[in-house]
Amino acid sequence: MHAYRSHTCADLNISNKGDSVRLSGWVHRVRDHGGILFIDLRDHYGMTQVLCDPDSPVFKEMEKVRSEWCIRIDGEVKARAADLINTKIPTGEIEVFVRDIEVLGSAGELPLMVFGDQEYPEETRLRYRYLDLRREKMQQNMVLRSDVVSSIRKRMWEKEFKEFQTPIITASSPEGARDFLVPSRQHPGKFYALPQAPQQFKQLLMVSGFDKYFQIAPCFRDEDPRADRSPTDFYQLDLEMSFVTQQDVFDTIQPVIGGIFEEFGGGRKVDETWEQISYKDAALWYGTDKPDLRNPIKMQVVSEHFAGSGFAIFAKLLEQEGTEVRAIPAPTGGGRKFCDRMNVFAQKEGLPGMGYIFWREKTADAVAQELGITVKEAQAKLKSGEVEGGMEAAGPLAKNIGPERTEAIRQQLGLGIGDAAFFLGGKPKAFEAVAGRARTVIGDELGLTDQNRFAFAWIVDFPIYEKDEETGKIDFEHNPFSMPQGGMDALQGDPLKVLGYQYDLACNGYELVSGAIRNHKPEIMFKAFEIAGYGKEEVEKRFGGMVNAFQYGAPPHGGCAAGIDRIVMLLADEQNIREVILFPMNQRAEDLMMNAPSDPSSDQLMELGLRVIPQE
Amino acid sequence: MHAYRSHTCADLNISNKGDSVRLSGWVHRVRDHGGILFIDLRDHYGMTQVLCDPDSPVFKEMEKVRSEWCIRIDGEVKARAADLINTKIPTGEIEVFVRDIEVLGSAGELPLMVFGDQEYPEETRLRYRYLDLRREKMQQNMVLRSDVVSSIRKRMWEKEFKEFQTPIITASSPEGARDFLVPSRQHPGKFYALPQAPQQFKQLLMVSGFDKYFQIAPCFRDEDPRADRSPTDFYQLDLEMSFVTQQDVFDTIQPVIGGIFEEFGGGRKVDETWEQISYKDAALWYGTDKPDLRNPIKMQVVSEHFAGSGFAIFAKLLEQEGTEVRAIPAPTGGGRKFCDRMNVFAQKEGLPGMGYIFWREKTADAVAQELGITVKEAQAKLKSGEVEGGMEAAGPLAKNIGPERTEAIRQQLGLGIGDAAFFLGGKPKAFEAVAGRARTVIGDELGLTDQNRFAFAWIVDFPIYEKDEETGKIDFEHNPFSMPQGGMDALQGDPLKVLGYQYDLACNGYELVSGAIRNHKPEIMFKAFEIAGYGKEEVEKRFGGMVNAFQYGAPPHGGCAAGIDRIVMLLADEQNIREVILFPMNQRAEDLMMNAPSDPSSDQLMELGLRVIPQE
Repeated sequence: MHAYRSHTCADLNISNKGDSVRLSGWVHRVRDHGGILFIDLRDHYGMTQVLCDPDSPVFKEMEKVRSEWCIRIDGEVKARAADLINTKIPTGEIEVFVRDIEVLGSAGELPLMVFGDQEYPEETRLRYRYLDLRREKMQQNMVLRSDVVSSIRKRMWEKEFKEFQTPIITASSPEGARDFLVPSRQHPGKFYALPQAPQQFKQLLMVSGFDKYFQIAPCFRDEDPRADRSPTDFYQLDLEMSFVTQQDVFDTIQPVIGGIFEEFGGGRKVDETWEQISYKDAALWYGTDKPDLRNPIKMQVVSEHFAGSGFAIFAKLLEQEGTEVRAIPAPTGGGRKFCDRMNVFAQKEGLPGMGYIFWREKTADAVAQELGITVKEAQAKLKSGEVEGGMEAAGPLAKNIGPERTEAIRQQLGLGIGDAAFFLGGKPKAFEAVAGRARTVIGDELGLTDQNRFAFAWIVDFPIYEKDEETGKIDFEHNPFSMPQGGMDALQGDPLKVLGYQYDLACNGYELVSGAIRNHKPEIMFKAFEIAGYGKEEVEKRFGGMVNAFQYGAPPHGGCAAGIDRIVMLLADEQNIREVILFPMNQRAEDLMMNAPSDPSSDQLMELGLRVIPQE
Repeated sequence: MHAYRSHTCADLNISNKGDSVRLSGWVHRVRDHGGILFIDLRDHYGMTQVLCDPDSPVFKEMEKVRSEWCIRIDGEVKARAADLINTKIPTGEIEVFVRDIEVLGSAGELPLMVFGDQEYPEETRLRYRYLDLRREKMQQNMVLRSDVVSSIRKRMWEKEFKEFQTPIITASSPEGARDFLVPSRQHPGKFYALPQAPQQFKQLLMVSGFDKYFQIAPCFRDEDPRADRSPTDFYQLDLEMSFVTQQDVFDTIQPVIGGIFEEFGGGRKVDETWEQISYKDAALWYGTDKPDLRNPIKMQVVSEHFAGSGFAIFAKLLEQEGTEVRAIPAPTGGGRKFCDRMNVFAQKEGLPGMGYIFWREKTADAVAQELGITVKEAQAKLKSGEVEGGMEAAGPLAKNIGPERTEAIRQQLGLGIGDAAFFLGGKPKAFEAVAGRARTVIGDELGLTDQNRFAFAWIVDFPIYEKDEETGKIDFEHNPFSMPQGGMDALQGDPLKVLGYQYDLACNGYELVSGAIRNHKPEIMFKAFEIAGYGKEEVEKRFGGMVNAFQYGAPPHGGCAAGIDRIVMLLADEQNIREVILFPMNQRAEDLMMNAPSDPSSDQLMELGLRVIPQE
């Protein structure tokens, strides 16, 4: 018999009755039922109940084992009594009577229980990650991650992509975040950098004539702490193709990402058609370039109904250039309580408030006032049908702008009794983000957002440049590698009007993918940089490897990168990225288990030609 | 039609005759045949001949294109004349008459030609790697590498291994080489390290209850230059399993590695059974722990034939303790010229020489001397058959030890007429390595080594410890993580006699795989370290993460790591590791294309709390 096991802890069932077996695993739980010891023995694959009574030759040894000891047992498979069958696990029909035991690894007092649902502080979980990872949910998350990555690879191979590894110890590739540096021993005082992304290398691969590249690539960014990102490294599905248009990239990646969500989404609905929404429309409709389309709410411009209206705040505001009033329709939100709650939300977000109108069944009060009769008379008329009930608009805004404008708004937004609309005005840039968040809260609170769905859309036509409001300086909006739509000609006009072949994929409010058709023409690239204030010399210094390469027959190319950690987070329904990473850093970028970072030895510093500046 | 191509440059054949097609690719070669331009258009997939005569509307533009310009052409597929068909390429039956052309990316003067076989200095090749990589052999090598890695993954998945990514920015994991350090910005003065291997993490994964782990893992070692290794990083197939014996690991990895060599070995023979050879036997038989078993020569101990013999050098030497005389049999090497050449080889290796005996047909000279007759008489007797010819041993050694001992040696080594044997004596450690190299040269020169074969053997039973000859200090022979055979008991005796569950896989003279069953018991681990002079505190400091984890129910586990770069080198028949890496560093650990390492900015140094010490 094998030294450690004849079966895993998930293998045995009633067909093994009477078999002599050997199992190895961890003591999940020990119960003492009237002198008989019941142990749930656990391994990566499952759980098997083993038991031992005082007649067993190893009862005394079995009495010593504690939770999380790693043991090997020999025993005989027996059928459980009918009323003791556990239908929830594959081994639930049997149990193993222990005849022999070997302690493979004992355990001290546990800082963290594997059995049960007790919550522990994150610091404890990270310090004793090897115990934390034994918990069922963590085992599932890590297996999910592994399976997702494998499936992505298979899907990319099917599309005839080759995976290539690009350098990890390399030169700085400025992507907007901070580099991690690596001091060179052979060239003291000089430093390598870890790649923020394989951006330049994948473009160089295209120039090298490789047609379809992908990589599950580690990326390194020295980021400040945030719950949904790792402070050190993360993984992306990085891909690049030559001789392609934007639509080719979409057609390539959609079945991969969509397929992954179908395969691992646990039955949640996955959109089949992925709308393409311009960056401009996304900002207007959803207040963000990563909209959650499970939420059906779409904002609209309603400026015309407020211009010159009796609602002085908006009317005045609209006299300034560049201002707008936008409505957030809130179907089924038509109640004062809800509307007031949203108003409070807006105030918490730093706005003076959020005007609203809601529509309800006409009340007797309103009829009485309208017809100049008593409420009682109005009630009677409504009851008899002499006066039609119908709809009325409520809320201070409705009063201020009057019934006609109110009705026009209602019709534009397609709302009715029981619905509401919220209004925000000003320069769009100033309120768009809040409007977007309000849309999310409204969708969630009213139960409009379909929790059981993965909703995808491509956000396209990103502007290449943006203007810093304070300094007036023009800079790249995203990254400097995208091809401007219209090429060199477009760069001759107003830079803020230049759109790029640049795109993101939004899913349930997250940016899952980001990419572009690249600017592969040196002259267009230098011009694009010049507009953002970078001289030729600066460009050659920062992106020399790539810019040089473009002088030697660069093909048109494009691609994208998809965040692996985020995809797994969505699939596992986790909010914290550390739940889908095996050995994550804590938010202070420390590894508590391995004790990193730590003090270097003076020999190491000497070899690297470095001195540590004493901190105050 | 697609913006760039209707077909790749490998797609078109006679069935496309008459089709209007669009192709994109690089101008491989331009030929002007009497006013008609022939262009070999190349992409990742293949080559298509396109041509253009002065009647074409774009003849003038076509005249401008040069080697390595990236172009798009439209044209019509025509059949080649029968005598112009090229059977070597799939598109050899057709050519495309160009109707339209677009220059996608022009090229300046080329520092390196893609077409042709010209050799360039490595510095040029690395600086313009994107051109170098366009060459056919490099495209093939990189695709081979990609395909090998994919196939490894598929094979591991089939065996129900999960791939997990372990941290790259982490703590030092001393494996014998130098760490690359990464200064921490959030903790100025402290440093992370890049992993020399995921050794500790894969063991922690086992403690975490994951049963079968693998990873195509980047490993980082700050190595001094050598042709067959990268000075910065390399990749290994890293794997680990719980509840396994050494044989289980062999049974797991053999079909993976063997399968890869079958799949990508280009028909070269792959051994089906992989012998297990003890470290001790490997040293004796082959003079190395990574023997090339394509070479059939096996060395033997022949001390008894020299002890007390007339060959004083060996006879005296054997009176000292710990000495031996070993023979390298050299079938078909029986000629004075060859034997003298090997003697010179030994002198170049720093030995006084290498004694030899060779066996040949008996000469008339020898018969004359033996019988006290003239050479002429002897010749006559040999011719008439009155005296039997047979075999004689030649060489000074044979004379010194006399015919009986010589014959005993011949019989032990199983040699005959036309064969030779070489002899080395002393303390084995002192001459083993030279003997091993001599064995290789003999095998190569005599054509005994089968060049068309991948020969595998497991080297097992490595000693855990070795003694530094100078200091007398006991230290770990390999790495400190292996389980000693015999466990704690074995550690109570002579440390130099303790063998480990530790193994290498040798293939054609290279170490392809290295691994061990690990020491998962804290008490045995501390004892093992104590013998090598490391106190408990030191162990906890250096391997704290892992040693702590072992206190909480560690399972028995083991695994191995296989060098990806080396496997691909062997398959691609390359001697230099840089031929199978996309963007390698040069031997001074510089990336000439990306300009790394480079000077950090003073802001960066400030943030990291570092100062560069001015170099003299």
